[in-house]
Amino acid sequence: MKIGILGLGLIGGSLGYDLRSQGYHVLGVTRRRSTCERAIALGIVDAASVDMNLLATAEVVFICTPIALIIPQLQQLMNYLPLTTVITDVGSVKTPIVQAIAPLWKNFVGGHPMAGTTDSGVEAAQRDLFLNKPYVLTPDATTPQTAISVLEKIVRSLGANLYFCSPQEHDQAVSLISHLPVMVSAALIASAMNETDPQVLQLAQNLASSGFRDTSRVGGGNPELGVMMAQYNRQALLSSLQQYRQNIDELTNLIQQENWAALELKLQSTAQARPNFVE
Amino acid sequence: MKIGILGLGLIGGSLGYDLRSQGYHVLGVTRRRSTCERAIALGIVDAASVDMNLLATAEVVFICTPIALIIPQLQQLMNYLPLTTVITDVGSVKTPIVQAIAPLWKNFVGGHPMAGTTDSGVEAAQRDLFLNKPYVLTPDATTPQTAISVLEKIVRSLGANLYFCSPQEHDQAVSLISHLPVMVSAALIASAMNETDPQVLQLAQNLASSGFRDTSRVGGGNPELGVMMAQYNRQALLSSLQQYRQNIDELTNLIQQENWAALELKLQSTAQARPNFVE
Repeated sequence: MKIGILGLGLIGGSLGYDLRSQGYHVLGVTRRRSTCERAIALGIVDAASVDMNLLATAEVVFICTPIALIIPQLQQLMNYLPLTTVITDVGSVKTPIVQAIAPLWKNFVGGHPMAGTTDSGVEAAQRDLFLNKPYVLTPDATTPQTAISVLEKIVRSLGANLYFCSPQEHDQAVSLISHLPVMVSAALIASAMNETDPQVLQLAQNLASSGFRDTSRVGGGNPELGVMMAQYNRQALLSSLQQYRQNIDELTNLIQQENWAALELKLQSTAQARPNFVE
Repeated sequence: MKIGILGLGLIGGSLGYDLRSQGYHVLGVTRRRSTCERAIALGIVDAASVDMNLLATAEVVFICTPIALIIPQLQQLMNYLPLTTVITDVGSVKTPIVQAIAPLWKNFVGGHPMAGTTDSGVEAAQRDLFLNKPYVLTPDATTPQTAISVLEKIVRSLGANLYFCSPQEHDQAVSLISHLPVMVSAALIASAMNETDPQVLQLAQNLASSGFRDTSRVGGGNPELGVMMAQYNRQALLSSLQQYRQNIDELTNLIQQENWAALELKLQSTAQARPNFVE
């Protein structure tokens, strides 16, 4: 089977490595000729081109561009493909993507492989990036079962943990566990930065250790990525932030009221719940 | 020089190891006879007793009990010591401790070694626990310089990074970098737990990875410790929480207003500020 990959960065390149080693014939299209050459040299693709026409014979195409380019790239790509081609994407937000593409391409299934590193570009691509990592597919009621089955088989061949859900469920879940943490963590850094007593600020900088390090990590990450999450997942993130603010207010009120028994119950409940999410 | 340690848990025990290897004669007092025997067997102390009278000949005494016991234990200890003995503590909040003890004991200097592990008890004690870690001393205007100098020399012998500040400055700084993160992180877990759609909750549990893991770590920690921080550092923590809520509201408003340029500037500022605190 021929599989096309549009966009040969970290995700597209890593898909190429694994799909080729599963025996698929991989065709890559990317905007720079130098990336095509590099992808061939690295063994990421069997063939590469800057011309989308290369993908005309692929049975499945993965769109692996940055999220802002997924819809415009699909609109171009459509002109080169037979209607039977199954198209998927790897964008980290699904509702706006699926809503825009579903009316344009029947055999489209939204996807989100939840794997990555802080590096990007074709040189960052690596084998087994998706192994034992979640990979979400978000078909809707109109998605043909054949398209879902084809993709399911490919995703399972990557060794990923496959989940199916609606685009809305996906976006609400990633809002809670991925996008909300960025805002929570950024607000923590901002609060420490805002300290007006220069002696205390200096001392806070000297004394900060693992607790501050871990809690502030994602809030000190790539600002463009943070904005992208907020832009594309705005409604779900606003709803998560509202829920979050209620919890901050509840904790603040318990401390204000010196209701230590209730505060301990609340902290017990979070300590008990955390292992359901991680570890 | 003879140094007394009251309370032979993780901190008291670790102090014992390092002070003995610096050549100090270390006397330990703890409530359980079995802990005395264990401390001697481990080489943490030169002598140990359940009787505070053992500390009568010490020139310096470290109170290493849980924070709630520092003041009551000092009130007992006073009866056994000459007025020249320098007393310090290792409590993680300083204002209420120093305010209570300063009128009772002239040669008292509040202290806070910022080192630890998740384990506790004498078996958890380890050598070099304080090496390259912050150690804060909080003398006030009335503290005799001789008492400060004696302690300074001992703390430096541990290889710790010594800082001096007022109890209030200490408490405001640790509120920002240690106590606020616990509440911020607990509220994140609570928000994810509160998800009312069971499908989304299950999905969030399946998809949570490193971002959620790091941001939720300290909010999933020891509930009693979280309550203790809030109890003893209530005013500073409430002030930090108020500052924090303003930052959450600011981020929420920027997302609500789709002011992506301002959101990017805000996230750039947090990304730039974080290295001033950690790494």
